[in-house]
Amino acid sequence: MLYAASGYRVQIYDIKPEQVQHALSTIDDQLIQLAKDGLLRGKLTVNEQRSLITGTNDFAECVKDAFFIQECVYEDLDLKRGVHAKIDSLCKDDAIIASAASALIPSLISQNLKHKNRFIVCHPTNPPFYAPLVEVIPAPWTDPDVVVTTKQLLAETGQVPVIEGVMSVEDIDKVMSEGLGRRYAFMGPLETAYLNADGMYNYRDKYGEMIYRVQCTFGAPRKMEGPILDKIQNELASRIPLDQLNERRKWQDIRLASLQKLKNDLDKK
Amino acid sequence: MLYAASGYRVQIYDIKPEQVQHALSTIDDQLIQLAKDGLLRGKLTVNEQRSLITGTNDFAECVKDAFFIQECVYEDLDLKRGVHAKIDSLCKDDAIIASAASALIPSLISQNLKHKNRFIVCHPTNPPFYAPLVEVIPAPWTDPDVVVTTKQLLAETGQVPVIEGVMSVEDIDKVMSEGLGRRYAFMGPLETAYLNADGMYNYRDKYGEMIYRVQCTFGAPRKMEGPILDKIQNELASRIPLDQLNERRKWQDIRLASLQKLKNDLDKK
Repeated sequence: MLYAASGYRVQIYDIKPEQVQHALSTIDDQLIQLAKDGLLRGKLTVNEQRSLITGTNDFAECVKDAFFIQECVYEDLDLKRGVHAKIDSLCKDDAIIASAASALIPSLISQNLKHKNRFIVCHPTNPPFYAPLVEVIPAPWTDPDVVVTTKQLLAETGQVPVIEGVMSVEDIDKVMSEGLGRRYAFMGPLETAYLNADGMYNYRDKYGEMIYRVQCTFGAPRKMEGPILDKIQNELASRIPLDQLNERRKWQDIRLASLQKLKNDLDKK
Repeated sequence: MLYAASGYRVQIYDIKPEQVQHALSTIDDQLIQLAKDGLLRGKLTVNEQRSLITGTNDFAECVKDAFFIQECVYEDLDLKRGVHAKIDSLCKDDAIIASAASALIPSLISQNLKHKNRFIVCHPTNPPFYAPLVEVIPAPWTDPDVVVTTKQLLAETGQVPVIEGVMSVEDIDKVMSEGLGRRYAFMGPLETAYLNADGMYNYRDKYGEMIYRVQCTFGAPRKMEGPILDKIQNELASRIPLDQLNERRKWQDIRLASLQKLKNDLDKK
């Protein structure tokens, strides 16, 4: 939907044909709802956007002419490797091959691909229309133009891409404000996990191991000091000078007051 | 302002008389703004609320007849102990003595007080009108009626008190959604820290040691399993049964769409 809103032709594929049909009818409903809410993106009408999206039951047809391929299968290394081996054998040499991996490392998914230089992780937040953060993570062998084009393409659709690896202070903050922070204005992290899967046991099955593995990479606590603190201070000060803190706090309070009013109104309905 | 909105008489004191005057004139402005925004709390008019709030330069006058005393000095153990020793010598025997401590442990502040059974930590989030979370933390010797009355009083004003210690899943989630989560919808954690003090160096001076000390109490990562996982699943399922996940996701999406629209509108202004 995001790519179609920017005028791109999009073809979707799933191993189950009924899933493709279900997606297309959900897209019909959502485009109408977005238009009603004044949140449709781009300059095309609902019908123009919808007509750019087609489904297919033929994997090769979906992949062979595409310049940008977005894989969105479950977070399972073997499954992702299998899908990417298939894409690898069918895609154009200059296609960009994106994976929605959330914690699987790009190099592990792509190391055996012929087109591994065209591979990149492109991990959206749910729901993408309302939580525009996209984590973009190249592998060590990813061509630089793949990173640049992916970032441009996402920004063109209205998403907020951040390139992970060495991140700016602003991008670290965006991971919250353009991603989960939007949900946290209404619900806490436990309910968010519960809804992100089908309850907590299903969440544990899908993400438990991955979260544990990532947490085990955290080192001991570090004091807030030294060059990292300087960097954070300097980057923030270049955007919000210390003599303009009160203006920014006013900016914040206007938003918090508006959010309070919005929450009151929504809860009344 | 919150207590006055519920009809309570409030007297404020500061060691600097000009700070009291500044607070009173800020309250004038803010009450008018809240009324304009439709966010005034309670059933009293601006003038009625304002007339319930007075300032004083006499510490004893402020404290001696109060049934609820809220201390809000800097996060410094010796400073807080000194202020509470003074309150202790002046207050009524059945007063509730609340401290806005954020990480200082209630027992450390109150252990030498004659009225230590009346002591409780009552830590608001900033700004309280738009981020209603209040962390309520009794000391081991706090009378049970102090906890009950504090919680009732805060709920009566429209705040969202959570009793810390052994917390429910819902209260853990509220710490985010009624507190910092509201800011995270607009800005990330680094900018939040920057604005919470006068920049990052000042933040380090005020909170760096405390954050480091708290982080050092964290144990090694634990797998998502066993009785804690069961408890989280069971409590969430009692509020959102597994067969109603889609309804709740719709509830969420309506809020995220409204927030997106709000952000668009605010950024246009």
